[in-house]
Amino acid sequence: MEVKSLTEQKSLLTTLSPGKRTRLRRLLFEFGPGNGTLMLLPIDQGIEHGPRDFFPNPASKDPEYQFRLAAEAGYSALACQIGMASRYYPDYAGQVPLILKVNGKTDIPSSSESFSTCNASVEDAVRLGADAVGYTLYVGSPRQDLDLAQMRTVREDCERFGMPLIVWSYPRGSAIDKKGGKDSFYAIDYAARMAMEMGADVVKLNMPKRGDSDKDAPEPYNEMDVSQEEAIRQCVESAGRALVVLSGGSRVDDEMVVGNTRAVMQAGGSGVIFGRNVWQREWSEALEIVEQIKETLLSNIRRIP
Amino acid sequence: MEVKSLTEQKSLLTTLSPGKRTRLRRLLFEFGPGNGTLMLLPIDQGIEHGPRDFFPNPASKDPEYQFRLAAEAGYSALACQIGMASRYYPDYAGQVPLILKVNGKTDIPSSSESFSTCNASVEDAVRLGADAVGYTLYVGSPRQDLDLAQMRTVREDCERFGMPLIVWSYPRGSAIDKKGGKDSFYAIDYAARMAMEMGADVVKLNMPKRGDSDKDAPEPYNEMDVSQEEAIRQCVESAGRALVVLSGGSRVDDEMVVGNTRAVMQAGGSGVIFGRNVWQREWSEALEIVEQIKETLLSNIRRIP
Amino acid sequence: MEVKSLTEQKSLLTTLSPGKRTRLRRLLFEFGPGNGTLMLLPIDQGIEHGPRDFFPNPASKDPEYQFRLAAEAGYSALACQIGMASRYYPDYAGQVPLILKVNGKTDIPSSSESFSTCNASVEDAVRLGADAVGYTLYVGSPRQDLDLAQMRTVREDCERFGMPLIVWSYPRGSAIDKKGGKDSFYAIDYAARMAMEMGADVVKLNMPKRGDSDKDAPEPYNEMDVSQEEAIRQCVESAGRALVVLSGGSRVDDEMVVGNTRAVMQAGGSGVIFGRNVWQREWSEALEIVEQIKETLLSNIRRIP
Amino acid sequence: MEVKSLTEQKSLLTTLSPGKRTRLRRLLFEFGPGNGTLMLLPIDQGIEHGPRDFFPNPASKDPEYQFRLAAEAGYSALACQIGMASRYYPDYAGQVPLILKVNGKTDIPSSSESFSTCNASVEDAVRLGADAVGYTLYVGSPRQDLDLAQMRTVREDCERFGMPLIVWSYPRGSAIDKKGGKDSFYAIDYAARMAMEMGADVVKLNMPKRGDSDKDAPEPYNEMDVSQEEAIRQCVESAGRALVVLSGGSRVDDEMVVGNTRAVMQAGGSGVIFGRNVWQREWSEALEIVEQIKETLLSNIRRIP
Amino acid sequence: MEVKSLTEQKSLLTTLSPGKRTRLRRLLFEFGPGNGTLMLLPIDQGIEHGPRDFFPNPASKDPEYQFRLAAEAGYSALACQIGMASRYYPDYAGQVPLILKVNGKTDIPSSSESFSTCNASVEDAVRLGADAVGYTLYVGSPRQDLDLAQMRTVREDCERFGMPLIVWSYPRGSAIDKKGGKDSFYAIDYAARMAMEMGADVVKLNMPKRGDSDKDAPEPYNEMDVSQEEAIRQCVESAGRALVVLSGGSRVDDEMVVGNTRAVMQAGGSGVIFGRNVWQREWSEALEIVEQIKETLLSNIRRIP
Repeated sequence: MEVKSLTEQKSLLTTLSPGKRTRLRRLLFEFGPGNGTLMLLPIDQGIEHGPRDFFPNPASKDPEYQFRLAAEAGYSALACQIGMASRYYPDYAGQVPLILKVNGKTDIPSSSESFSTCNASVEDAVRLGADAVGYTLYVGSPRQDLDLAQMRTVREDCERFGMPLIVWSYPRGSAIDKKGGKDSFYAIDYAARMAMEMGADVVKLNMPKRGDSDKDAPEPYNEMDVSQEEAIRQCVESAGRALVVLSGGSRVDDEMVVGNTRAVMQAGGSGVIFGRNVWQREWSEALEIVEQIKETLLSNIRRIP
Repeated sequence: MEVKSLTEQKSLLTTLSPGKRTRLRRLLFEFGPGNGTLMLLPIDQGIEHGPRDFFPNPASKDPEYQFRLAAEAGYSALACQIGMASRYYPDYAGQVPLILKVNGKTDIPSSSESFSTCNASVEDAVRLGADAVGYTLYVGSPRQDLDLAQMRTVREDCERFGMPLIVWSYPRGSAIDKKGGKDSFYAIDYAARMAMEMGADVVKLNMPKRGDSDKDAPEPYNEMDVSQEEAIRQCVESAGRALVVLSGGSRVDDEMVVGNTRAVMQAGGSGVIFGRNVWQREWSEALEIVEQIKETLLSNIRRIP
Repeated sequence: MEVKSLTEQKSLLTTLSPGKRTRLRRLLFEFGPGNGTLMLLPIDQGIEHGPRDFFPNPASKDPEYQFRLAAEAGYSALACQIGMASRYYPDYAGQVPLILKVNGKTDIPSSSESFSTCNASVEDAVRLGADAVGYTLYVGSPRQDLDLAQMRTVREDCERFGMPLIVWSYPRGSAIDKKGGKDSFYAIDYAARMAMEMGADVVKLNMPKRGDSDKDAPEPYNEMDVSQEEAIRQCVESAGRALVVLSGGSRVDDEMVVGNTRAVMQAGGSGVIFGRNVWQREWSEALEIVEQIKETLLSNIRRIP
Repeated sequence: MEVKSLTEQKSLLTTLSPGKRTRLRRLLFEFGPGNGTLMLLPIDQGIEHGPRDFFPNPASKDPEYQFRLAAEAGYSALACQIGMASRYYPDYAGQVPLILKVNGKTDIPSSSESFSTCNASVEDAVRLGADAVGYTLYVGSPRQDLDLAQMRTVREDCERFGMPLIVWSYPRGSAIDKKGGKDSFYAIDYAARMAMEMGADVVKLNMPKRGDSDKDAPEPYNEMDVSQEEAIRQCVESAGRALVVLSGGSRVDDEMVVGNTRAVMQAGGSGVIFGRNVWQREWSEALEIVEQIKETLLSNIRRIP
Repeated sequence: MEVKSLTEQKSLLTTLSPGKRTRLRRLLFEFGPGNGTLMLLPIDQGIEHGPRDFFPNPASKDPEYQFRLAAEAGYSALACQIGMASRYYPDYAGQVPLILKVNGKTDIPSSSESFSTCNASVEDAVRLGADAVGYTLYVGSPRQDLDLAQMRTVREDCERFGMPLIVWSYPRGSAIDKKGGKDSFYAIDYAARMAMEMGADVVKLNMPKRGDSDKDAPEPYNEMDVSQEEAIRQCVESAGRALVVLSGGSRVDDEMVVGNTRAVMQAGGSGVIFGRNVWQREWSEALEIVEQIKETLLSNIRRIP
């Protein structure tokens, strides 16, 4: 099956309220690589995976490491939970924008019925001077009913306060496992669309991976033979006017970091959100890979945000 | 068993509050085919089924396609979720009425305990300039208790704001599967009545399908031998003064599109809500089938709304 | 075991607040047979059982049939859900009192864990000009905790607005099935008491049926050998000062309709609430049986309400 | 293992707010036997067990029987649910204090996951002129999380309105059944402490029963060899400054009634709450046993409340 | 695998609001051993384990014992539930600071799905003159979603009222049991981080124990060979700027009490919270061990709070 080129998405910023536009512009143009790109630093692995993610680079266990990195390496923004935002962000306030992640969970229990309750509010984000709010939506989880209802309240508060909403849109749960898995083209494509239709301004997606389990996905995904480039392009299109940032996942080699960055930009995405791929490196190495990411972002812009 | 003709339903509009009447009249008389008919365009398949519904016509993945179609082909209204209403409707505001669908879900988990939580509010609909609110009720689901309680809040807000309430009344869940299935005459008939008694102004029904599984339905449905025309007529009667629109489902051939449209109008229905049957076609073909639907609607009016 | 005569219950009306007294007096004295009796018409079968109840008399599918019947045959009140109260009652406002039934459910899922959520409020009842509110309590259901908590809010609102509370007190659920069943003397007797202690003004009971399954009931019910007359008398006593109306259930012959009416009145009850036994008949037949019920009510009064 | 004498508890009343003190003093000194004792009449068996408890004395089915008994025999207070408090207490207002029991349930479903939702509020108690509120806490139930959260709201309202809180502290549920059962010393001792630490002013306890199942209790209870007198003394100590009243349970002979009363008083308790042991007797017999209880209470006072 | 030294944590107090700083300084400097240390006395075993913990020292069953001990032995604060805070703390108000523990539960049901609902509020703490609030978080429980949502409300209220938040951060539940258990380095390390990221000001941790079950923990914990000293140091680091106090657990010998105290202080912790290890001793013995703990705390300070 051949998949044809889709229409181009129009600008997101022109559809946003003044508050959302003001804040999102800071991330897209005033901080980080600029020119409408996003280079985000997530620091929520301490709760999502536990401190084990810090062992490859022990210095990273101290949140100072990531906060300093975000500010000094010139990120568009950093994303963390309420505790770190309260205790560590004050020292960097004004130096790098903050994305307050308002829900989260440990990965200790099984992910078959994933649901991540809010531990902070949009009002907390306003109070802390954040420029965006982050929310994890587990698309297709058996408990999606609770998730969508909870996300509604976050979206409404974002509208009320003019706060951009960035959705970590993750296929997850026992049902998705039976339909090709959380990294399948089918799953990521669905997650992209879901986030946009639920009101996300920016969608964080994982890179779709082609594999044998795709044959368990619903039609026509189970029969499609598309490249990874085409798959990510489709997913970006499914997010419509919502901006897309690619998630990095566990650490990979430099070539793949740069390659994935180029891929999402070529697909019409707006940037990347790489955590372990950056801060699991020592300081100088981290700064080095950040420079490569920046250059790749700026030389592959395909979309006006 | 013979089923006799029933009494005629009186006008719905005469029972409505000024706000509801004003808005519903826009759909029935000012936009679309008019003369008290409804031709609605649903654009919620991206979340209810995922992007897979867009592959037959790749252009349809961009919401612009459906929004432009709704405006240019002269629909009575289009129905979509909050994200699309916020980002795409502004360009078409005033050109075609909006129905804000306030609940929804993915079809990734099993539908055995279906329940669709609200992701938007009636107040969102007011703010966006919508002329009606859409709500999916899963009749007979094991979680109907939550569904009815949630629908109550939507109905109350609709009354408060003078907003017409359109109910997607769908039999669903493990219990209905054992009693003839979600498309049986029994199930659709029950769904029609349920929606009306719960306060729907307009009810969206699927076409009842006769088949072997009907013998699992409760008496007297299990022994009845009625035609599909008679079945749909009964279902429309069960909805009482609430207006009925027929849902299209997956794409069928032109003849069946027109035939189903005629059937629901002859049965006393008020129109159709066909999505995939229209926008899975290329632009010119889509316009063509829309013209046929319009003509069929206008030439088969049996009821004063 | 012999069961002796119990003390007589004192008047309910004297214990009620002015609002409750004013409204309940309308049903007892100003409409219907009067003289402190109640003849109520329930029209909630369309949701509790589905449209199948209308097939024996197709004319009854149109709610107009029952509303007209209630008004013209001189009922004390009719009971229906919010949708019908909103769309059909306006034409009969002032001609027959309205009881707004505020909860309900389909009978599609199993009744093993019965619970019926509210789909309307006491405030809705006030707004619609109703003279009482109806609530279904599933006594002994595994989910009775939710039921009692929900009924509390209805009772409190009834007190706040001076609205009489009529409780459909139905033993239901897997646990009651193992203890003699929902129609056993044990079950109905418990349901009568429960409704009164939870604050009902009027209790709707089914006729207790003696049978083999009674031996599964707790002591001393499993060993008792009392007549049906004595059983219903006991149940009425268990309701204390709350008034009791007997529920009719599925259609039976005229003799049994009259006999049951006499039985509940002789037992100290205040009337009947018969639906299918009346409106499953053609118009003239329906009027005829209503006349017999009225006469029986008026000639067997044993209690001052 | 030997258990030694514990320190003496100080006065509860001196720690109470003016409202709580005023009301509790009425029960302890102004009504009933007085001198700081409590003789309470519970009338909630109609919902907790059903009308079957009334068969041994049919006259008791009419709530008038118990209300008159409470007033004429000189009880410290009577305890009942909202329905009876609304319909029967007005005739006895001012003649005997009222304890409004705010939660309750039927015993029809299994008690393995016991939880009793509130059907009335502390505000109801204030409105009805009650002098205390009763709450049933199922200690150790798998649903204790809901129970403790609900009890919190009752406690808070009691503090707000100056209303004494009497906790029916009952070990219950599948887990307690495996650890010696609901009547074991372990279970009652835990229940006593739990109620006090959760904010009870008065704790209602069952008499701990020694038996074979005690060996299933946790250490050191499984190895202890203490008399019933010592066990009840320990339980009373565990309740600390909270006053303890002993619950009667099903009917036993006069000697045991008096013996249990003496035991709880000797143990430092403040009185008894006996229902069936009193009102399952005919009027004169009931008055007679009440006199014996009063005398026993007054002649065995060991504690200043 | 070698684990390297981490960066030093900066001061917590400098990041706190005036209210939190004022109250926490009382515990750190004005009461107890002072100099920025914490010696806390927990008295919640009566509900968490039941009265069985009091049998080794019967005098301890009377809460007076612990309250007097806390005041006379010079503790930084004592921690208890609402009932004891209301009835026993007034006599010691101003003599020793109060930590109101706002949630709790019995250990009667299985801990496989641990969740501890709030039985008191931060407002209660304010009203009672408390200087901090205690909250138990069950890290990794299958019901962590409820726990995190509940803790959010406590954290928000703590921020609103300027009340320090002390988190009992306990790995618990069936999932943690399969990954090395609740006392593994992996589990305690995760719990430390989780509490900090969720907004704790002080974290109460158990001593990590190395053992065979560690091989079931996720990488790299399953392969690490670190000493207990190193493990506790890592856990303290994971808590970042949040202060750490070590929990004592069941009674051990004097040497271990002192050794554990030294270990947590050397690791950068701020003190200990030992209950049974102190009050299960007779009065003079209790005072003696307290003196040893104080000396150890003061002679091993490594951190500015």
